[in-house]
Amino acid sequence: MDLNAYFEERLSKLHENGNYRIFADLERKAGAFPKATRYREDGSTQDVTVWCSNDYLGMGQHEKVVSAMQEVIAKCGAGAGGTRNISGTNHYHVLLENELADLHGKEAALIFTSGYVSNWAALGTLASQVPGMIVYSDALNHASMIEGIRHARCEKRIFKHNDPADLARQMAADDPGAPKMVAFESVYSMDGDIAPIAEICDVADRFNAITYLDEVHAVGMYGPRGGGVAEREGLMDRLTIIEGTLGKAFGVMGGYITGSRTIVDFVRSFASGFIFTTALPPALAAGAATSIRHLKESQEERAAHQAAVAKVRAALEKRNIPHMPNPSHIVPVMVGDAKKCKWISDILLDNYGIYVQPINYPTVPVGTERLRFTPTPLHSDEDIRYLADAICDLWSQCALARAVA
Amino acid sequence: MDLNAYFEERLSKLHENGNYRIFADLERKAGAFPKATRYREDGSTQDVTVWCSNDYLGMGQHEKVVSAMQEVIAKCGAGAGGTRNISGTNHYHVLLENELADLHGKEAALIFTSGYVSNWAALGTLASQVPGMIVYSDALNHASMIEGIRHARCEKRIFKHNDPADLARQMAADDPGAPKMVAFESVYSMDGDIAPIAEICDVADRFNAITYLDEVHAVGMYGPRGGGVAEREGLMDRLTIIEGTLGKAFGVMGGYITGSRTIVDFVRSFASGFIFTTALPPALAAGAATSIRHLKESQEERAAHQAAVAKVRAALEKRNIPHMPNPSHIVPVMVGDAKKCKWISDILLDNYGIYVQPINYPTVPVGTERLRFTPTPLHSDEDIRYLADAICDLWSQCALARAVA
Ligand SMILES: Cc1ncc(COP(=O)(O)O)c(C=O)c1O
Ligand SMILES: Cc1ncc(COP(=O)(O)O)c(C=O)c1O
Repeated sequence: MDLNAYFEERLSKLHENGNYRIFADLERKAGAFPKATRYREDGSTQDVTVWCSNDYLGMGQHEKVVSAMQEVIAKCGAGAGGTRNISGTNHYHVLLENELADLHGKEAALIFTSGYVSNWAALGTLASQVPGMIVYSDALNHASMIEGIRHARCEKRIFKHNDPADLARQMAADDPGAPKMVAFESVYSMDGDIAPIAEICDVADRFNAITYLDEVHAVGMYGPRGGGVAEREGLMDRLTIIEGTLGKAFGVMGGYITGSRTIVDFVRSFASGFIFTTALPPALAAGAATSIRHLKESQEERAAHQAAVAKVRAALEKRNIPHMPNPSHIVPVMVGDAKKCKWISDILLDNYGIYVQPINYPTVPVGTERLRFTPTPLHSDEDIRYLADAICDLWSQCALARAVA
Repeated sequence: MDLNAYFEERLSKLHENGNYRIFADLERKAGAFPKATRYREDGSTQDVTVWCSNDYLGMGQHEKVVSAMQEVIAKCGAGAGGTRNISGTNHYHVLLENELADLHGKEAALIFTSGYVSNWAALGTLASQVPGMIVYSDALNHASMIEGIRHARCEKRIFKHNDPADLARQMAADDPGAPKMVAFESVYSMDGDIAPIAEICDVADRFNAITYLDEVHAVGMYGPRGGGVAEREGLMDRLTIIEGTLGKAFGVMGGYITGSRTIVDFVRSFASGFIFTTALPPALAAGAATSIRHLKESQEERAAHQAAVAKVRAALEKRNIPHMPNPSHIVPVMVGDAKKCKWISDILLDNYGIYVQPINYPTVPVGTERLRFTPTPLHSDEDIRYLADAICDLWSQCALARAVA
């Protein structure tokens, strides 16, 4: 078998289908977000406005976060120098874990190198280490959750997206004595819809299941202290584990779980993906803790964020650009074709200096390709008008469907 | 099933066997490495000397690395703000990937959030995406490689540790037409032994297999430019993929693979663990690139490192403390019992201010529990003498076996 030829063939299929990914080479500019410099292939540069960042609140350039990181680098150096167990635990990790447990009203927290690893390792460990565990997983769960569950080789059931009735049906069909876990997200990042958390917890309680909620696209942004949708709805105590990331609204990098002292200690003690890897740099832990602390107090960023989202929606509606309605901060504009989606985003970038990455398979199903806009408190009214006008131009040029006025 | 009781029972078994892990809570001190502050449970602090860091060369506090990171935080902010595909690629990632490809004499490189994730994602992708792939894995491969191979659900064979003859026997028994991959490490981090890379590549060539080498415990430290053992031995072009970490000798955090443009593009395009996660902060990429660049030029750290290792070995030998002989920079002192190992390291820490984590199961097999010392260029002669004397005291107190003089 000629492996090289095989790899090239697979790659050329991606090119043919419009699914080959070309990464925009950017340089973020602290103090000027969402503006950035784009490096073109030929070495020339271009000023762009980023419209698809998951630094949802701009905390990645917040002065407090930036200076906390710089200070701790000066004080402790660059890396952690080891795994958590072997010389890698730094006092800033301990402080961050306290901050996170407090954020979600839990006894304990555990940080991982990323949200991806936290889902993969925590779900994988709980589902593989508990004999007979059955995992009920929402049909649209993130890749990291799917891989964790797959890793465990446990019994699994996929329930219809955000559908407590389907979940209940499936749970009722299983052995009442089997240990059970329900895994789902609060804000689904591609459609921006929000799970019926209370109803799902009701079903889980009925069948004596533990619950695992991914709040990656909600922490920092929802709830009076940024604890996520479960905090906003007063439901944090109904979740066995709440998982989140430090890399989106908190603006840094890393992931975590929170829960009872026992369950967190169990994951800490048995999760390969936690044990056998270098810990987060102390400066990242300090930066994240600073960001969390700030967003526990300040409502300003959350309010401005929701206002920006409302303005973008209104600007699109005024121009009859159809966008997916949802109760969150994510504004998906459907295109439904991988090549067209890429073509539009290329023109927005090259001709308008608007950077929005086309979202194609495997991030979303084929046929639902889209532009996914993430307004932030730092997009100006002028940015918003300019964006909406540009899309309007392109919608006319490509003869894309308009919303029925 | 009472899950909480189950978790507690599992944890109490760890306590009983001496395998329950208590993380030392440290504060690294830039400029004073390997000295650190330890936070005790009661809130008091203690000055300690770290003897088990994987910041092998002390690059985590190197002035160039520290200032590169601080500068880029000032310039670009804290996090990357997105996955590599969706707004998260920063120019510093691109520069780092160029630096890494050059380090290993390869066409291309791809960075991941950690060395763990690079192994898991790259091996998992190659082994699952190539139909019929058989993976030959060294018996002592790291958890991250094992999990990646396990993830792929491919055919796999475990060959005897560092044994090309056993590898050849197993390969000869398999279908000559099946695609094959040999996965192994250069320096094995717990015993400090080094793979016969040339012989393993010879076998791989004979059976038309691709080769995957983890140089996590070698990059920065071996070879005239820090390219690892394969560089030192002039073998880099015989490896299909060389994998490494940015979190040990390079002093920062992150992982990577290097290889041909095609194979790297393939992993980039298909690996879930690469695609669906926030990219490394630009400052980490800049810090790592600075560290790599420095170690490509400077021989000073490598020479001082090897000298410190030789001094520690000599000091132990002088006192008849048995340590595992090996050709690398890792100095394992065998204890062979989990509780005794923990007891010794507790006394070293509490009474002597020497921090060396006990290495117990699952990091090493039961019965091979050890202290694992990692001398760095920054341990002074006095640090070394003090360490050897302390161990000598304890060896007498615990009636542990002496080397036959
Ligand atoms: C729902 C969800 N969970 C987890 C993750 C992974 O988090 P991280 O980027 O911190 O790895 C993501 C996206 O990256 C996500 O969308
Ligand atoms: C051989 C080996 N490979 C990979 C890793 C993982 O690298 P990282 O710490 O960057 O996740 C480690 C240790 O952590 C290791 O010992």
